[in-house]
Amino acid sequence: MTKRILPRELHAFCVEAMRKAGMRDADARTTADVLVTTDTWGVTTHGTKSLRQYLLRMRSGGLDPLAEPQVVSEGPSWAILDGRNAMAMVASCAGMELAARKAQDAGLGYVGVKNSCHFGAAGYYAMIAAQRDLIGLAMSNADPNMVVPGGRGKIVGNNPFAYAAPAGEEKPILLDIALSAVAAGKIHAATTLGKRTIPDNWLVDQDGLPTSDPDMYPFRACLVPMAGHKGYGLALMVEVLAAVLAGAGVTREVKSWMLDDPSKPTQHGHAFLAVNVGALMPIEQFKARMDQMIREIRGAPKAKGSERIYLPGEMEWERREEALKNGMELPPDVVASLVGLAEDWGLDARWLQ
Amino acid sequence: MTKRILPRELHAFCVEAMRKAGMRDADARTTADVLVTTDTWGVTTHGTKSLRQYLLRMRSGGLDPLAEPQVVSEGPSWAILDGRNAMAMVASCAGMELAARKAQDAGLGYVGVKNSCHFGAAGYYAMIAAQRDLIGLAMSNADPNMVVPGGRGKIVGNNPFAYAAPAGEEKPILLDIALSAVAAGKIHAATTLGKRTIPDNWLVDQDGLPTSDPDMYPFRACLVPMAGHKGYGLALMVEVLAAVLAGAGVTREVKSWMLDDPSKPTQHGHAFLAVNVGALMPIEQFKARMDQMIREIRGAPKAKGSERIYLPGEMEWERREEALKNGMELPPDVVASLVGLAEDWGLDARWLQ
Repeated sequence: MTKRILPRELHAFCVEAMRKAGMRDADARTTADVLVTTDTWGVTTHGTKSLRQYLLRMRSGGLDPLAEPQVVSEGPSWAILDGRNAMAMVASCAGMELAARKAQDAGLGYVGVKNSCHFGAAGYYAMIAAQRDLIGLAMSNADPNMVVPGGRGKIVGNNPFAYAAPAGEEKPILLDIALSAVAAGKIHAATTLGKRTIPDNWLVDQDGLPTSDPDMYPFRACLVPMAGHKGYGLALMVEVLAAVLAGAGVTREVKSWMLDDPSKPTQHGHAFLAVNVGALMPIEQFKARMDQMIREIRGAPKAKGSERIYLPGEMEWERREEALKNGMELPPDVVASLVGLAEDWGLDARWLQ
Repeated sequence: MTKRILPRELHAFCVEAMRKAGMRDADARTTADVLVTTDTWGVTTHGTKSLRQYLLRMRSGGLDPLAEPQVVSEGPSWAILDGRNAMAMVASCAGMELAARKAQDAGLGYVGVKNSCHFGAAGYYAMIAAQRDLIGLAMSNADPNMVVPGGRGKIVGNNPFAYAAPAGEEKPILLDIALSAVAAGKIHAATTLGKRTIPDNWLVDQDGLPTSDPDMYPFRACLVPMAGHKGYGLALMVEVLAAVLAGAGVTREVKSWMLDDPSKPTQHGHAFLAVNVGALMPIEQFKARMDQMIREIRGAPKAKGSERIYLPGEMEWERREEALKNGMELPPDVVASLVGLAEDWGLDARWLQ
């Protein structure tokens, strides 16, 4: 994997695949922006690797290439958006952009999205807010893939959660996490890469006991919440905000975008929250306070053997800068998926290899 | 510790101590409600045990018994409240009540509180919202007591975070956590109870290595974030919402309410968020959806050796029901602190023992 891929080449390739799948040019570009940006962050488990599966689902009818998400109810500071089974990136970008506009008018904005699907990396949507000088929170529920304390089997999703906050001279703070000990994508990546063992605190088996065999997932093992009851409780907070309140599918009503019938909607829900910093405090003052906090943390004493303290998102910003300048090396599982995508839609994949 | 204490007796005792310390009756009652409710939940590390220290700080001038928190700026969906170094429970109840009123008018409400102190259990404030059929989030920063990945020593607080959401026939969901692997109060409780060892994933020593000696804390050890970079990132989210945006002290500017100069303010900040469910969805529909989710999770298959799955807050509601009916057994460290409180303010403590 020494070939370096330029983000703009990858973007054009993804747009072309989505146009062949029947999507409008603007929606294809929006979706490609989300997925390629995620790859540039180095979060390749949640980027263009997934596009092949999204488009197979679209071809089978579970996603509608031409659907236009629609606001079904709204107030000064909130809205409910019906994704109408559009590509989830299309509904999610529309959702956060609307939350940002609400926040710019009212101080705060909440948009709940229903009838959606897997939205990729939550952090992209949080950054839509941060780029507009707002604090942004983005979250989604997921099909149950995680046990809960005292339980056995898959009970709730490992619901992704992200926030971003603007800074001044420093890069925005950006945290994007799954509420399991690790994201499902990391286990799929381990399997695809042929790894035989994973740390024994990533999964439990059918009896609820730890296992280090990645091949057990997803059929004979499930994820565990991060930090036990804390991750469980936070996953339910996401379920409340992104699904119960948004009118989306809740826990078992949500289907897997990878494993369940691709002809049927998955019923995911999302929540997007924005806070208009400038309404509460002069934005330059806020940014100076953010810079000060960031620099104090970065300058704190280092642990033995550690040379550096990273702020949340800092690794991602550095990887992105490098990717935009010199291209990026995509891991074999991503390349394999993109080659498959090219086969599915009759595109040229030679530039990838 | 077989003596059972009735919550109303404990409440009256706390009110009396606060009146002797110069607080108004209404503020003393508000504060006692927070602390005694926390004890009834079984969260005795964060309840009336702390009152002695709060009042010593008040006597030394670091808290102002007669201060009235004041709104210093506001919009339709938000406000900044200056706590003016009042007892933090007084400022925090006012903060969430204001956030709730904003949400009832505008759909969402955010109140940031500055010039405050240790606010006890975040969950109490989240429940102020849930009791009004709102979703509530409550959070606070803390003096740095936690390391961050790659660092050594105390860099950020283990910032408490809580949310509560109303249900129908079921009890509200209530999660109240510190963003460290364990709360500082649990380590203090272990020390006070004479425990010689704690699990080795609660603290790191001065070199950043794990230690199981509770006596190392707080001078020669610090807390670790829950789930590593995830807890670190969430602690910074709280710092952004409760301190940077609220205008409060940030990280090192916040002082310990237990260890630092009691004559000086601690500069804590808090954030309270409320979402008016009924504006977005008929409240009975939301509650029915909550009940359904709660029952599905409770009814899921149990792990080997487990008889029950608890929803977040369910243990606390059961303990509270029992405490209101039959009184509660307070642990020795709490009784010792209450006896000390009685000595400090010339109250009768015989009923406690």
